[in-house]
Amino acid sequence: MSARDFDAWMRDRLAEVERALERWVPADAPAGLGEAMRYGVLDGGKRLRPLLVLAACEALAGAREAALRAAVAVELIHAYSLIHDDMPCMDNDVLRRGKPTVHVKYGEAQAMLAGDAMQALAFEVLTPCGDLLDAPPEAVGVDAALQARLVALLARASGHAGMAGGQAIDLAATGRALDEATLRHMHRCKTGALLQTSVLMGAACGHPGAREWRALADYGAAIGLAFQVVDDILDVTQPSATLGKTAGKDSDANKPTYVSVLGLDAARRHAQELRAAAHAALAASGLADAAALAVLADKVVEREN
Amino acid sequence: MSARDFDAWMRDRLAEVERALERWVPADAPAGLGEAMRYGVLDGGKRLRPLLVLAACEALAGAREAALRAAVAVELIHAYSLIHDDMPCMDNDVLRRGKPTVHVKYGEAQAMLAGDAMQALAFEVLTPCGDLLDAPPEAVGVDAALQARLVALLARASGHAGMAGGQAIDLAATGRALDEATLRHMHRCKTGALLQTSVLMGAACGHPGAREWRALADYGAAIGLAFQVVDDILDVTQPSATLGKTAGKDSDANKPTYVSVLGLDAARRHAQELRAAAHAALAASGLADAAALAVLADKVVEREN
Repeated sequence: MSARDFDAWMRDRLAEVERALERWVPADAPAGLGEAMRYGVLDGGKRLRPLLVLAACEALAGAREAALRAAVAVELIHAYSLIHDDMPCMDNDVLRRGKPTVHVKYGEAQAMLAGDAMQALAFEVLTPCGDLLDAPPEAVGVDAALQARLVALLARASGHAGMAGGQAIDLAATGRALDEATLRHMHRCKTGALLQTSVLMGAACGHPGAREWRALADYGAAIGLAFQVVDDILDVTQPSATLGKTAGKDSDANKPTYVSVLGLDAARRHAQELRAAAHAALAASGLADAAALAVLADKVVEREN
Repeated sequence: MSARDFDAWMRDRLAEVERALERWVPADAPAGLGEAMRYGVLDGGKRLRPLLVLAACEALAGAREAALRAAVAVELIHAYSLIHDDMPCMDNDVLRRGKPTVHVKYGEAQAMLAGDAMQALAFEVLTPCGDLLDAPPEAVGVDAALQARLVALLARASGHAGMAGGQAIDLAATGRALDEATLRHMHRCKTGALLQTSVLMGAACGHPGAREWRALADYGAAIGLAFQVVDDILDVTQPSATLGKTAGKDSDANKPTYVSVLGLDAARRHAQELRAAAHAALAASGLADAAALAVLADKVVEREN
């Protein structure tokens, strides 16, 4: 896939994801809640997770409506986690995607509620159905068994054994030295699980065989970890203006990072190894049309913010 | 159903729910997260929502495993909302069920994460499946279509159009006078939606006809509102020791309540009207075995804490 072809592919998918977010994140939620939710998720972000969902779905010629819902759902989970993570009791950050964080703009209570409502909305978007009070909800637009599968994947990746668990390890690790294995476990949970699940949710929209599924799980694990290694590198090498968030935050907070544990050069080498592992997994998948996934692995490692 | 029969029924169901919570709320979640989650949901609470799920399921001779999972899931959502609601940026409460609140015991960051992880766990419990990384998750124990239905119900009741939306209205209403219609809307969202959904999740585990479904939705709406009216009455008539939480909190905070809007006597009459409406809905359902639901409606109105 040429750089130009990928750029066109990405531009189309990003526009589609923005339209879907615009449609499914409610403007009319009561008492300012909708405004805070939309502020937290619209008009910003790289949308890496939605792109992974769509690329994996396309590699398996899967169901488009289901994948679009999965893309929105995983982005809602990611965005809610940023809102909660930025709050004073967590990272206490005032800048995100170059704008004031949600609690700075709307207050802490509304920020917490917006995050809570966004997590619920993710599971709502995954389970489209008819009028609930009129009759037991019947699946609409997405096959019910696929709805259940997507919920199972997303719930596990965001909860105690995934993202939230990783954040708890992170909390406990601040100011402590970690060995590389513990650091890797923390990041596999905190960041990796949701990135891997993005790939698997997209794949679930098709009819993956066991070989394809396992290879895509390996691909997702590799880019999930690569993303965090690169994040740690960028935290010390890029200014805040480029990152759109406060640079040097993790090293200032004395949090263990790949750079603090491995050193900058070894962290860079590790990112390249993980990129190679992602490409190897795609080759092992036997998928004929995994070009967008391959370029996404490169982008994860080459990104500058 | 005699009082003795109901007590025996309830004792059995409560024991079953506690065993299920004990089994499904992880002890081994990392870095103290599991401990905070278990502290927030085990060993306390009236378990009204789980009882409603199980009673509705039994009235329709529904699937037991599904109903037990629904009972645990709805209690997890309820418990997470209490944890977040008690935090300093919301109600800033230090006492819940007669014990220090989660943020007092574990700190604000861990309390927020525990709540977040409990919401995810609710949807995980609703979607039992095999090993995710080995193959696309297949439903286990609960039919996949029913899994999707239960998620659809729970997500909508807890999100922006339900519980979280009601909390946002509550936030915005503090210190303002509300008319009864707005107060009712707030409580239908904040408390009523999850209680109503408990009934409907239980019903969905059976094979309800449209008449039964709509009647149970009416029953759930009536007891949902009755619960809040009684809550507002108890807030001004009972001491903290009986409530297991800080009494007089809402009136002190100058929050609009049924007592402040209607007066104490009219609020008590309204609770009785809602009890009658709940019984009328059960009669209209045509269900032969709705005795436990009938007693639960009485208990909601007659409770003292």
